[in-house]
Amino acid sequence: MIKVGIVGGTGYTGVELLRLLAQHPQAEVAVITSRSEDGVKVTDMYPNLRGHYDDLAFSVPDAATLGGCDVVFFATPHGVAHALAGELLAAGTRVIDLSADFRLQDAEEWAKWYGQAHGAPELLSEAVYGLPEVNREQIRKARLIAVPGCYPTATQLGFLPLLENGLADNSRLIADCKSGVSGAGRAAKIGSLFTEAGESMMAYAVKGHRHLPEISQGLRRAAGGGVGLTFVPHLTPMIRGIHATLYATVADTSVDLQSLYEQRYANEPFVDVMPAGSHPETRSVRGANVCRIAVHRPQGGDLVVVLSVIDNLVKGASGQAIQNMNILFDLNEKLGLGNVALLP
Amino acid sequence: MIKVGIVGGTGYTGVELLRLLAQHPQAEVAVITSRSEDGVKVTDMYPNLRGHYDDLAFSVPDAATLGGCDVVFFATPHGVAHALAGELLAAGTRVIDLSADFRLQDAEEWAKWYGQAHGAPELLSEAVYGLPEVNREQIRKARLIAVPGCYPTATQLGFLPLLENGLADNSRLIADCKSGVSGAGRAAKIGSLFTEAGESMMAYAVKGHRHLPEISQGLRRAAGGGVGLTFVPHLTPMIRGIHATLYATVADTSVDLQSLYEQRYANEPFVDVMPAGSHPETRSVRGANVCRIAVHRPQGGDLVVVLSVIDNLVKGASGQAIQNMNILFDLNEKLGLGNVALLP
Amino acid sequence: MIKVGIVGGTGYTGVELLRLLAQHPQAEVAVITSRSEDGVKVTDMYPNLRGHYDDLAFSVPDAATLGGCDVVFFATPHGVAHALAGELLAAGTRVIDLSADFRLQDAEEWAKWYGQAHGAPELLSEAVYGLPEVNREQIRKARLIAVPGCYPTATQLGFLPLLENGLADNSRLIADCKSGVSGAGRAAKIGSLFTEAGESMMAYAVKGHRHLPEISQGLRRAAGGGVGLTFVPHLTPMIRGIHATLYATVADTSVDLQSLYEQRYANEPFVDVMPAGSHPETRSVRGANVCRIAVHRPQGGDLVVVLSVIDNLVKGASGQAIQNMNILFDLNEKLGLGNVALLP
Amino acid sequence: MIKVGIVGGTGYTGVELLRLLAQHPQAEVAVITSRSEDGVKVTDMYPNLRGHYDDLAFSVPDAATLGGCDVVFFATPHGVAHALAGELLAAGTRVIDLSADFRLQDAEEWAKWYGQAHGAPELLSEAVYGLPEVNREQIRKARLIAVPGCYPTATQLGFLPLLENGLADNSRLIADCKSGVSGAGRAAKIGSLFTEAGESMMAYAVKGHRHLPEISQGLRRAAGGGVGLTFVPHLTPMIRGIHATLYATVADTSVDLQSLYEQRYANEPFVDVMPAGSHPETRSVRGANVCRIAVHRPQGGDLVVVLSVIDNLVKGASGQAIQNMNILFDLNEKLGLGNVALLP
Repeated sequence: MIKVGIVGGTGYTGVELLRLLAQHPQAEVAVITSRSEDGVKVTDMYPNLRGHYDDLAFSVPDAATLGGCDVVFFATPHGVAHALAGELLAAGTRVIDLSADFRLQDAEEWAKWYGQAHGAPELLSEAVYGLPEVNREQIRKARLIAVPGCYPTATQLGFLPLLENGLADNSRLIADCKSGVSGAGRAAKIGSLFTEAGESMMAYAVKGHRHLPEISQGLRRAAGGGVGLTFVPHLTPMIRGIHATLYATVADTSVDLQSLYEQRYANEPFVDVMPAGSHPETRSVRGANVCRIAVHRPQGGDLVVVLSVIDNLVKGASGQAIQNMNILFDLNEKLGLGNVALLP
Repeated sequence: MIKVGIVGGTGYTGVELLRLLAQHPQAEVAVITSRSEDGVKVTDMYPNLRGHYDDLAFSVPDAATLGGCDVVFFATPHGVAHALAGELLAAGTRVIDLSADFRLQDAEEWAKWYGQAHGAPELLSEAVYGLPEVNREQIRKARLIAVPGCYPTATQLGFLPLLENGLADNSRLIADCKSGVSGAGRAAKIGSLFTEAGESMMAYAVKGHRHLPEISQGLRRAAGGGVGLTFVPHLTPMIRGIHATLYATVADTSVDLQSLYEQRYANEPFVDVMPAGSHPETRSVRGANVCRIAVHRPQGGDLVVVLSVIDNLVKGASGQAIQNMNILFDLNEKLGLGNVALLP
Repeated sequence: MIKVGIVGGTGYTGVELLRLLAQHPQAEVAVITSRSEDGVKVTDMYPNLRGHYDDLAFSVPDAATLGGCDVVFFATPHGVAHALAGELLAAGTRVIDLSADFRLQDAEEWAKWYGQAHGAPELLSEAVYGLPEVNREQIRKARLIAVPGCYPTATQLGFLPLLENGLADNSRLIADCKSGVSGAGRAAKIGSLFTEAGESMMAYAVKGHRHLPEISQGLRRAAGGGVGLTFVPHLTPMIRGIHATLYATVADTSVDLQSLYEQRYANEPFVDVMPAGSHPETRSVRGANVCRIAVHRPQGGDLVVVLSVIDNLVKGASGQAIQNMNILFDLNEKLGLGNVALLP
Repeated sequence: MIKVGIVGGTGYTGVELLRLLAQHPQAEVAVITSRSEDGVKVTDMYPNLRGHYDDLAFSVPDAATLGGCDVVFFATPHGVAHALAGELLAAGTRVIDLSADFRLQDAEEWAKWYGQAHGAPELLSEAVYGLPEVNREQIRKARLIAVPGCYPTATQLGFLPLLENGLADNSRLIADCKSGVSGAGRAAKIGSLFTEAGESMMAYAVKGHRHLPEISQGLRRAAGGGVGLTFVPHLTPMIRGIHATLYATVADTSVDLQSLYEQRYANEPFVDVMPAGSHPETRSVRGANVCRIAVHRPQGGDLVVVLSVIDNLVKGASGQAIQNMNILFDLNEKLGLGNVALLP
């Protein structure tokens, strides 16, 4: 039984970790921390967990207690994992960080986008970017894993087959992404109110979103060189889900893209290439650790349109984190992640 | 392994049976029928099932094939089970009917509310009303089970402790119920459009709803006598969930209702009496086979207000159907029903 | 041209006043205040107002400036009007308060429900409760008007015909009310997030809501004596709208309630008694200053069910405030309030 | 007073015409037709219209009656206006067609996309495409106006300044558009159910949507030559609104696009170029006849991102139709269209 700790368990990725781990046969949540909710039972905050975690309460994060865990998930705002990860690793605890702290390999770039110095640059060299479809072998041997962001997961999985095969004009990639409101977290912000985000659609951060450098870094790795990406995120009136609509120009229109995508992901348990002509809905992955992808070439032209959907809280966060844990601990990668998406 | 057949699998209770059975370790869906979708793969209709039922296709209902199953679920409009149940029972197959066909014990009353003659009155005497919290022992020995409706489940579970103990004025019971739109099924009706049901609230069928006689029948059984019930259903702009707000006058205000409710359901795996003062949200049961209940007596008066929430497609339909199957086949009642509600 | 001031214009009742006043031919917004947004253009905060109020900016509230207005609307949290109203009245400015400050006639009761001493008890005797359907003549001569709350408006208009005619058992009135999330205001609260309030239904404040004493006060006036009211508000996943479902027992079931209601409101421009058997939807009043009512007696029993719907921000707040202004200034009561509800 | 007829008034563009015309001081609805609802009062179908059209009922379309009107709006599926327009024009009645019947100038292309022969090719030469921002002078003299589709309105207004000035690479235009569900009309389709379209996002018709040739035709006119457009529409879980996110590459990055857009639309009453850096929300135009536009050049690159939002039922249909009527009858173009968008 893997002894699990969760730091910062009051947010949506925290409760989602608890939901998924409740069904995991080889893992057990030993400790969950929250400074603000110290002493509160998790079921008082999240009644959906009643009957599953009736004895678990939030506690103040404490390195000694956390260090007794086999693995600690950070479901925190950026900056927190920087401060604690080193100590935990020293204690032999593995760290799976759902925040942005170790996603960018370049500390300078991190500092630029997050507006503060990187707090643990010495750990960057060993941090593994936890996208199993790219880094499965490194994850297996990692001590510190940076779970990809939600937009980056949907976008990279959609672009990878094109870029890895050198098929796209890498200088003109566009990711027009639509996210549910849970992507903004469980924070009391005016813009996330039902009355503000409901019944409306808007783009945001067109000037530059923090996920842009993360996506670019991943695409550069896939392309083996520089990429030019325009990333436009949109706030969509739904709770969960990301729909990435990706545009790339291909030079050779004779390539069978459907086969290419199917082959790339043939052995991936959590990437589903849909039949030609499909239009995946975000609800088809609600609550499930799956990315569904469809690839189109409208009007037979040279512009490829890839549709890629995930649940931002599952394959885009907590589900992918558990997938990483399964790989790390040599378990069946699908353990605890077998549930069917909730539809309708 | 229990061999399961599903008749009428294209609706929401059908896909919900498939979702839940995919996680059931002792049951296997052998056949699923639909006249209109004969030959269509279930994953083409419901992409959320991809990876789980890739080889299953709808077929035309056929008594011989269905008769080879250990149990057949009817997820059909009323009238269909009437026609097929007898033949299946004769073949030794157990029948769990999610439709209204066998819920009312009185064929005349059924005919009055459903506007057609009852099609199998000879089976009524052996049909067991599948509310485990009331009829667990009869379910265990049943051949034919009538799964309660969604409103009736939430309402009866909320009223039972009061009525079984003779505490309420049974002549003045009120059930003000709010249902998500999935209660109307997957039917192309104007009133169920996103543009019609969204961003709006309305009562309907105040004159008389088909669930009224079913609820009354259950409450009479609990009360051991006649009851006067006013039932007002409301269409609520959400996909899943029923919130029943129940009103009853009590003569004796000294009774500790919190204890009464907690004791009544102490051994019930799927009824959760919440702490005093709680306000259960429907989302706390989304996708889960649970009824959460809170009991209030506002301002210390003699009017009791019970709040009872379920997911209409789970504890109000398919989850409860599987709970019945578990009891029927002497399995652990919770098998396949352990998933946590999806929140947010 | 009536010179209008608005105190506290950043909330939803503030922007709704601006929306409605933009179409009012006899009123002009001269000043709008907000401490936190001093200097910000209203169109920067509310882009829907672009083209209508391009030169208007929020300013710090100042009695001198406000005193130059013919009328000042308070669209503030409770407590603010207490502090300013007296000074404005002294300056000859009329005050229309959308907050709760002057709704209760009893300062003690106000203090009990609002948890602080009443700040202007000396003004209570002249404050007029601004429900035109009850107090039109007093409103005409008033200097200080307390605009009714949203739940109180829907509930009182629904109960009035029964209570004024002594038809109901006044000791057992029930108001089961469903409100859209905008009723909680434009405040950064976790419970009002899209991710918390969306796709879910819940009751709240069953123990006692601040609108209870206001409703009771109005019902006592109508009944000419004491009333026993149980009021259960529910948070509904929609932006605007209140649906009040009201229950009352009548002694005499021979009364023609449909006629009674039609006659009571025959001359009311903003109360619409719908045909017998109707189920009004909240969207049928979205954005419009109307209360639509239907009256039912299910199964021919002695329990009357009244369905009453309003837009909480219009007839439940800003629209009603302007209706009061029109009466106060001897204008056509419908001026500026003629727009049709937005459907779908 | 302009005497107005409406053919096919039961859909959303029909009720929206009624809503807007109720506030129009110079127009009066004399007749509204529907074969299926003959004899039904419009207020029985659309209770939001109660108090405004209490005497108006649907009637079977009849050329004689319609021919007595000054103008007839067609709010019908495609094909209907083909059959009737000629006769009405002959009677001296002007025709404003909200359907697709006269939008494409090429009958062959129309036939290809709509799967049937064009029913009135002889009228094509005089049909004017009713986008006032392009064709105001032709509209003034027209007898037959084809009101643009919703996607085409948002997309063309967003691209026009770039294309008219030859700034974009016209061979690589992308329109990633998000539409509310009302764009699918008031038709009983499974895909438009609350339970299907709610809480989900999906692209559709990536292969080719009927609005593609209409948009291309308009863009060719603006560019004075061929264009290559990729158009990907998405179904968004909201009732109203279109958000067009437009991508174009510019050769000269020194052009001040903000000024260019502001100048292009400086005299347009219904196009609002927002300040640099803005992200228009669809709710900022809900119910209003406005297109709000923001223009970005992310990261200072050569890819321009234009955000263009409209209410699909207003500026994308009925509001624009009335704007055309105003121009046609030499009225103030803003007459009846002055209402503020409903927010929240």
